[in-house]
Amino acid sequence: MPHPVSPLAPQSYPKLPAVAGVRFATAEAGIKYKNRTDVLLVEMDEGTTVAGVLTRSKCPSAAVDWCRDRLPGGKARALLVNSGNANAFTGQKGRSSVKASADYVAEALGCSASEVFLASTGVIGEPLDAKKFEGVTKDMSGRLQPGPWMDAAKAIMTTDTFPKVAFATVDFDGVIVTISGISKGSGMIAPDMATMLSFVFTDAPIAAPVLKELLQPRIDRSFNAITVDSDTSTSDTCLVFATGKAPIEPITSAADPRAAAFAEALGDVLFELAMHVIRDGEGAQKLVTVTVEGATTDASALAIARSIANSPLVKTAIAGEDANWGRVVMAVGKAGEPADRDRLSIAFGDFTVAENGERASGYDEAAASAYMKNQELDLRVGIGLGSGTATVYTCDLTHGYIDINGNYRS
Amino acid sequence: MPHPVSPLAPQSYPKLPAVAGVRFATAEAGIKYKNRTDVLLVEMDEGTTVAGVLTRSKCPSAAVDWCRDRLPGGKARALLVNSGNANAFTGQKGRSSVKASADYVAEALGCSASEVFLASTGVIGEPLDAKKFEGVTKDMSGRLQPGPWMDAAKAIMTTDTFPKVAFATVDFDGVIVTISGISKGSGMIAPDMATMLSFVFTDAPIAAPVLKELLQPRIDRSFNAITVDSDTSTSDTCLVFATGKAPIEPITSAADPRAAAFAEALGDVLFELAMHVIRDGEGAQKLVTVTVEGATTDASALAIARSIANSPLVKTAIAGEDANWGRVVMAVGKAGEPADRDRLSIAFGDFTVAENGERASGYDEAAASAYMKNQELDLRVGIGLGSGTATVYTCDLTHGYIDINGNYRS
Repeated sequence: MPHPVSPLAPQSYPKLPAVAGVRFATAEAGIKYKNRTDVLLVEMDEGTTVAGVLTRSKCPSAAVDWCRDRLPGGKARALLVNSGNANAFTGQKGRSSVKASADYVAEALGCSASEVFLASTGVIGEPLDAKKFEGVTKDMSGRLQPGPWMDAAKAIMTTDTFPKVAFATVDFDGVIVTISGISKGSGMIAPDMATMLSFVFTDAPIAAPVLKELLQPRIDRSFNAITVDSDTSTSDTCLVFATGKAPIEPITSAADPRAAAFAEALGDVLFELAMHVIRDGEGAQKLVTVTVEGATTDASALAIARSIANSPLVKTAIAGEDANWGRVVMAVGKAGEPADRDRLSIAFGDFTVAENGERASGYDEAAASAYMKNQELDLRVGIGLGSGTATVYTCDLTHGYIDINGNYRS
Repeated sequence: MPHPVSPLAPQSYPKLPAVAGVRFATAEAGIKYKNRTDVLLVEMDEGTTVAGVLTRSKCPSAAVDWCRDRLPGGKARALLVNSGNANAFTGQKGRSSVKASADYVAEALGCSASEVFLASTGVIGEPLDAKKFEGVTKDMSGRLQPGPWMDAAKAIMTTDTFPKVAFATVDFDGVIVTISGISKGSGMIAPDMATMLSFVFTDAPIAAPVLKELLQPRIDRSFNAITVDSDTSTSDTCLVFATGKAPIEPITSAADPRAAAFAEALGDVLFELAMHVIRDGEGAQKLVTVTVEGATTDASALAIARSIANSPLVKTAIAGEDANWGRVVMAVGKAGEPADRDRLSIAFGDFTVAENGERASGYDEAAASAYMKNQELDLRVGIGLGSGTATVYTCDLTHGYIDINGNYRS
């Protein structure tokens, strides 16, 4: 299972501040992995609000179903996450397992099972034995601490090669509000409908409906703007918990000017976590930003950007450091969106490689090829029809992806 | 460029019969490849009708544009195909190059340029110098022969590892009508809108509108039912030429009973050629038939089948001989089509691995794993909602695909 750490991994990790009202512990339940933590329990103080975005897969995991049923309540006291088994496509057994897990947590923490949120990630289709959580949940409930976040981030990893953490603070008239989050994800990443596992915690006092309203557009610009392999998970889950412990007046409306400041910081944390996921894309050697401009609408630009970012031929060319912009043309052409071949322009970094429907007059193969050696690449496509724009983040498709996924279950 | 021959290549090649009224020659124009033929010229007798299906890419090649403009005429005298350069995204130069090529052919054969059809395949974005065809076209016109077809099939190959030929005959009251065809294609194969390069010739006397009417549904079940990598080419072209030399009364209506017999044979040839393409999918080690049944409509079944056949995670699992049916669940879930997780059933060959929303009760990991060692795999998904069905053919995703595509241009 241990794969070499992604070359795109961050050089250092920030030390995340504690969030008042949030305590957690991790444990080894031996679900799939040996000699590493695979369960995370988070307890949150009474009064914690929650909002979330879940996969729109038609085959969601039992834990996703559980969260979907409980999110309208807007209240949370606990979160239990396991790695190694997705508890997806596990039928009645999965539903029972989810219920039993929530009951263990409720009993250990003395809260209602309906305020316990759950997430599972790992193999699909394998029944998950909730009994494995019984003892470790009780044990973890006796060891809850406000840190360290790295332990939490490590416990939810699957094929991830590094833990993913990010935080931001907002100053409200001298009161510092904190937003700290973790995420996991490396393959089966095309959260075009929702997101991979990500959990964000804040001490801001913020009503659940407001939190929900602020969340979706920021998910669209972070987790919904990345793709490793075009495959959307059954388990995508992003939950944001607000304990309300920061000593400021509660934010009860999205029109509150403080909501905008909070939302910006929340957006920063989500974006950073999403970038960590793409930097840890299975087998990734390069981080690629695909920007499409001049499409008829933003939605059209997004469809074209995704067509480019998901193209195996574009991704293998990037892995081979080949400035094969012809494949970008192909991917624009197959997207099915309005495009006029003879108005297209394409740039790799500062090098315009194509314009007006043909190779740029000043095209310099050597310069374009040299640019492709960079670890981070900027691919820009002008459609020339309107003002629709979109940016999608992806990675290359390498032998590493084949190695990791050729025999994942065994 | 030479890659090992696909393990899925046919054991032997049929000797295609000549088609009355069709003569061809090949040559080395040195467009990209060295020491191999890369141009095919076909001359057809006066009175030849033509129908075709072309890529719906928004960035089609200059040759595709040329064919699209000429197909409504329904008449053909010649076909010129080159490999090594797609003449796509080459702007005004591409248009001039296409015109010049047709003129060379028209002059060499003494026909009208508007009855010359063209196709190009290879690198996108590289200007194609039509001058390279001037001498070889004249030379080929002096060497035209009714065979051998293998030479024609070889001249149009790019990353293909074997030539692709197929034929069928139809007996009309003692008169044997022949349908002989060739195709090429190995990567950038997701002709969900049209097809890769394929050229079919028959001596049947059949009106162009009838030929057109018979062609599309058979394309849907052959070339439009295969995918190597979800990437749709700028150059997809399938042309069917009918010389009318067979001594039978012309078929002037699709309601003619002979049209059905002809169409069935045409469908067989197209299907066989499409299977050759998928068997030569870049890096392919396994041929996979994905059948979806019980969807709400045929179109929905097709979308689900394509979602499975295009999933990198499903394809890498198959490469790894891993019976990871959970990834099939994921691919059904992400398709966005009506599906009820708890009614899904999945079978690998004769082994039902999942039913009623969970692992099948009689699931046998060892038996499923043993089945995955086969070179040809049958993957069957029941949606359980209606009677929509679809079948899509694909191959696995291996290190070979990365090797072939990491540095294609150089």
